[in-house]
Amino acid sequence: MSRNAPVFRVGVDIGGTSVKCGVLDEGNNFVARGSIRTNPEHPFEDVVERIGGLIKETLTGAGVSASGGQCAGVGMGSPGIVDSRSGVVVFAGNLNWSLVPLAGELAKHIDLPIKAANDADCAALGESLAGAAAGCRNVILVTLGTGVGGGVVLDGKIFSGGLPGGGELGHMLLVREGLACTCGRKGCYEAYANAGALERAAVSALSAYPDSLMGHRAAAEFDCEWIFDCAREGDFAAKGVIYNYINCVGDGLVDLTNIFRPEKIIIGGGVGQAGASLTDPLNEYVMNNCFAGKRSFYPQVVPAVLGNDAGIIGAANLGH
Amino acid sequence: MSRNAPVFRVGVDIGGTSVKCGVLDEGNNFVARGSIRTNPEHPFEDVVERIGGLIKETLTGAGVSASGGQCAGVGMGSPGIVDSRSGVVVFAGNLNWSLVPLAGELAKHIDLPIKAANDADCAALGESLAGAAAGCRNVILVTLGTGVGGGVVLDGKIFSGGLPGGGELGHMLLVREGLACTCGRKGCYEAYANAGALERAAVSALSAYPDSLMGHRAAAEFDCEWIFDCAREGDFAAKGVIYNYINCVGDGLVDLTNIFRPEKIIIGGGVGQAGASLTDPLNEYVMNNCFAGKRSFYPQVVPAVLGNDAGIIGAANLGH
Repeated sequence: MSRNAPVFRVGVDIGGTSVKCGVLDEGNNFVARGSIRTNPEHPFEDVVERIGGLIKETLTGAGVSASGGQCAGVGMGSPGIVDSRSGVVVFAGNLNWSLVPLAGELAKHIDLPIKAANDADCAALGESLAGAAAGCRNVILVTLGTGVGGGVVLDGKIFSGGLPGGGELGHMLLVREGLACTCGRKGCYEAYANAGALERAAVSALSAYPDSLMGHRAAAEFDCEWIFDCAREGDFAAKGVIYNYINCVGDGLVDLTNIFRPEKIIIGGGVGQAGASLTDPLNEYVMNNCFAGKRSFYPQVVPAVLGNDAGIIGAANLGH
Repeated sequence: MSRNAPVFRVGVDIGGTSVKCGVLDEGNNFVARGSIRTNPEHPFEDVVERIGGLIKETLTGAGVSASGGQCAGVGMGSPGIVDSRSGVVVFAGNLNWSLVPLAGELAKHIDLPIKAANDADCAALGESLAGAAAGCRNVILVTLGTGVGGGVVLDGKIFSGGLPGGGELGHMLLVREGLACTCGRKGCYEAYANAGALERAAVSALSAYPDSLMGHRAAAEFDCEWIFDCAREGDFAAKGVIYNYINCVGDGLVDLTNIFRPEKIIIGGGVGQAGASLTDPLNEYVMNNCFAGKRSFYPQVVPAVLGNDAGIIGAANLGH
């Protein structure tokens, strides 16, 4: 009886709120999906056992046997510092995990090869394989959301540091002795480039320019998208807010360019949904400000396209 | 007749003032050395032809035949942006070179495999193979001199970017809208961590505290080493100057730690000669300020030990 090589892989994205699971075919298409609440207040053994249950259910939903040689393995993306060699989550603040043997614990419930990596690293890998940077081997993902995170793909593989805990792109310095960051340091990129920084700047502009378009719309739902909308409609206050924000985000991208010279920088996260309104001026900024400017190679800045699926696709491709 | 594998390699370090050449045995020991003036005002073809002559002479001095299978190849370190895949110097300001086919041009004169890379990258590789980080596979070299440069070794190999021109560690931002940098950007790490920054701070302290030990010695030769000497003798003005400098240098090392998590960070360049007076407080600073602090892995900060030989040794090991 001939036996085919396994073609399915499982990707799991562990977040502070929910755990999302996907069974993928060899073309990185989703065959089945599932999700559960994370409930990180429970002991990690319970959380991981329920993740095991989620994986089995999702495989069943896909009609794929976990033990019949149809599935090559499971990859998991976790927030925080992950030692991908050992599958241990060294530290993940929002799960309250410290030295959790994630892969080892899941192996008690799932009899498949298991890998783990940082969630943003998985998202970068996913976008580089099947998304905004498909075909590129050197890619950086920067997520602009509540925090600023990111992932680095070098020569087609996740780079997360010589020792575990590298790739913390949101915690480069942007302003010495600047705004306090959640990490304890002052002046981190995150403190200037996250969604909160953009929103705070808009609130300041609102009180300074109550007659602006932003000011007239202040009663409406207030979010990052709306600031970009006002700017597109020509509102000078919104344009100023975005100009400053672009310069801050751009400065971090210039740093990453000077260090990594990737082929593409992908912008994800909530603010990233502004798309070309964000990436067009960022492209201009990076080209003009990176070391050696136009005399050298500079990356293309592009919006992420896979959304939450990027992390699942990347996790499924951690290499089994 | 049996023939042994070639055991010798040639390393060349091209500087703005001189070109240094070494023939190395398999243990990275120097068998012969040579040097010439660079004279970068001449056409690059002439400069490279004279480098070819230097290599032949140095090989002859070592009693090694260039064509007899005794020499595995030649590696060259050049300042500026080097495309190591093609051996082209994309841009090197202090040589006035732009798109110079360095390896290709040398091949007109030397019939051996030829590689080229950035000089600071070569130095990082040299220190990781035979110097301050021997045995480590993930190493960053930061040189604190007239400029601030550096090299990155990942998994035992030079990392110089997905596209040529990465690893410009001196041109990360330290202070947004800060001091002008030679690269055209404002607030680069280089502008705060180079020898000039330390010296300028000492000059300010001298006028503020003429009664300090530094003040009394002001007539003497003024250099970075002397500032460290005064601090070791307990001078409060010098200690203040160095405290601030350590914090600036340390902030850049924290950025590099958060991004790369190397096993070791090597400090080279003129200021680096202060040795443990510099690296002891830097170790403390990095440990306390890197992301997740002592809960994570942090690199050891150590002084460079190979001096100018690091670049030659690294160049000789570019891989033939």
